[in-house]
Amino acid sequence: MNSVAHMHVTLALEADLGIDHWPGEEYTYSAHYHHNGWGDERTYAGEFTAPSRTLDYRIYLPRLMEDFTERGGVMEYRDLSAGEIHALTDVHDLVVVSTGKGEIGAMFPKRTDKSPYDRPQRKLAVGFWHGVARRDPNGVEISIIPGVGELLAIPMWSFSGPVMALLFESVPGGPQEVLTDQRFEDDPEAYRKLTLDVLGRYHPTVMERVDVDGFRIQGEQDILQGGVTPVLREDYVRLPNGKFLLALGDVHLTVDPVQAQGANAAAYSARVVGDAVLEDEVFDERFMKKVASRRAERIEAANDWINTMIHNPPMPQIPALLTAMVGNQALADEFTENFNYPIRQIDLLGSEARVDAAIERAAARTTVPAN
Amino acid sequence: MNSVAHMHVTLALEADLGIDHWPGEEYTYSAHYHHNGWGDERTYAGEFTAPSRTLDYRIYLPRLMEDFTERGGVMEYRDLSAGEIHALTDVHDLVVVSTGKGEIGAMFPKRTDKSPYDRPQRKLAVGFWHGVARRDPNGVEISIIPGVGELLAIPMWSFSGPVMALLFESVPGGPQEVLTDQRFEDDPEAYRKLTLDVLGRYHPTVMERVDVDGFRIQGEQDILQGGVTPVLREDYVRLPNGKFLLALGDVHLTVDPVQAQGANAAAYSARVVGDAVLEDEVFDERFMKKVASRRAERIEAANDWINTMIHNPPMPQIPALLTAMVGNQALADEFTENFNYPIRQIDLLGSEARVDAAIERAAARTTVPAN
Repeated sequence: MNSVAHMHVTLALEADLGIDHWPGEEYTYSAHYHHNGWGDERTYAGEFTAPSRTLDYRIYLPRLMEDFTERGGVMEYRDLSAGEIHALTDVHDLVVVSTGKGEIGAMFPKRTDKSPYDRPQRKLAVGFWHGVARRDPNGVEISIIPGVGELLAIPMWSFSGPVMALLFESVPGGPQEVLTDQRFEDDPEAYRKLTLDVLGRYHPTVMERVDVDGFRIQGEQDILQGGVTPVLREDYVRLPNGKFLLALGDVHLTVDPVQAQGANAAAYSARVVGDAVLEDEVFDERFMKKVASRRAERIEAANDWINTMIHNPPMPQIPALLTAMVGNQALADEFTENFNYPIRQIDLLGSEARVDAAIERAAARTTVPAN
Repeated sequence: MNSVAHMHVTLALEADLGIDHWPGEEYTYSAHYHHNGWGDERTYAGEFTAPSRTLDYRIYLPRLMEDFTERGGVMEYRDLSAGEIHALTDVHDLVVVSTGKGEIGAMFPKRTDKSPYDRPQRKLAVGFWHGVARRDPNGVEISIIPGVGELLAIPMWSFSGPVMALLFESVPGGPQEVLTDQRFEDDPEAYRKLTLDVLGRYHPTVMERVDVDGFRIQGEQDILQGGVTPVLREDYVRLPNGKFLLALGDVHLTVDPVQAQGANAAAYSARVVGDAVLEDEVFDERFMKKVASRRAERIEAANDWINTMIHNPPMPQIPALLTAMVGNQALADEFTENFNYPIRQIDLLGSEARVDAAIERAAARTTVPAN
């Protein structure tokens, strides 16, 4: 269960591999609708140049696993200790590790230069809800309230058809964190009412689309509560037998979900690894360094971008950027489209000087010169 | 004065910029002719997929400088101290430093992880000679004698038309180093005879093309003697005023000329910098790191490849590779074409395991299966 969006750059990777199975518009959205908790004019929208897809991963991933096995891959389900993973390198040319938890994640040392936080910067709660109308054109609502956190309302397609993923990203200690701390399963009806209360109190542009009578969770398995400590880990480790383990996905880069980059970064990284496997046949340290070098710029950009966005208190350029987008359509579109291009996004918002330059540049594009 | 070859990947960069001014075949070559100083069968050739250009830099570069000024660039000729270079950052958005000598080179710290040598591994002597016939098809002769060094016979086009650059790469302490130590200008005729003597003694596939009576230097300015300590330096330095200096070319990567990579690496690097300038407008540390990240894989590959080739004594995989090419046309062609692709070249020859894999792979391509 997850509220992942595949951006169009990721869909292009899937099309290239012949695994782009869901052409329908019901699975996609094409805009970001913003609401900021400050200023006189608080709403604006940005458009993507091509749609993103939001299909329940419990439908999406099993189909990709079928593609994998149809092409000769073999799936095995086993619990593996770190030692058992080490032993796999004796019988396989290349072992790639993707899960990021516990002793397995700890096999790959944390990169302290790129991992500024030692705890989650947001408390998370995401559920798939009925009773929240989609926008037209379909889009993700990004509602940001200083001191409270973010709400992302993400139109998903799940087992029952259209649902709205409400992803509450709550500042620790703020008034929204209760949606993470109060366990859904203890009292689902109380949790439902609490959610409506938070929506009504802080997120008017989502609340106005709620049908209170029809507002209910899709199912008991459709809610996740927790938090993520962002971390970027080393690309690979050398084992005592001289072989290597390569990190890919969450075990390599763990990000807060607020900018929808985890799966897209992992897909990019997987393509880099796949291409390197096709061009090389010796899986030594040079191979590992080649993979590391080729994915570094984009992976580090995603990491830095998200860690800039979730900083408590906000980095000074972020409110400046969000406010400037209200009256600057080119800037809003650029910020939105950049969810496909983390390098461009950190170029845009990496510092106050960079945001100032981006505002000026976009304003020049938007303004019709008087004559 | 220089014996640079622009590989076809570099010519493609020039074509893209509209500065590819020399279409004629007289300026190009398309093959490597090899001669090894061991084994029963010592000669073989490798072919490029597209020709390289060898035009005297004293003709080439002034034309490119004209292109630069025609498009709005301004050339100024001044001696600059390191301090004066620092001061340029107060009046320019971006200052790129290319020369690599003395205190200016020393502004950029040496990367000890990528700079294995503290002195030249070859003594160098290169002259532009008349009286050495070209091969058909035109090509560079690579004559390698263990314990002596290399001779590269490079067909150049210079002020007088066709000349042959004889680039002697001599192992320090070996019998060829006299061509570096005995100064040409002290006695040009003695140096000419000495050159003929070395050719006759060690380099039969070049000597057989020499017309002894016509063998003479093009001019007194057409010889260079010296040596290069290979070094890879940091991509940039931060100055006390908060601005940066960016390294490009020799000041960044200084390589022995034996694999003809210096100018090609610099051209690639310049394109990376140019593209980054077009996409960005804030020349902060992020910009510097972006440039560093994008050129790292190719620059480091060239550095590692050349430093592998010039190691004294030879790295074990190099004689194995050169010998295997005698009977393996696919491998000879691959090694040759890879002068365009340093990443593929270090993939091929970075270790004994990699050379073994490359020999097997190329042999499989060359062999016609019996049936």
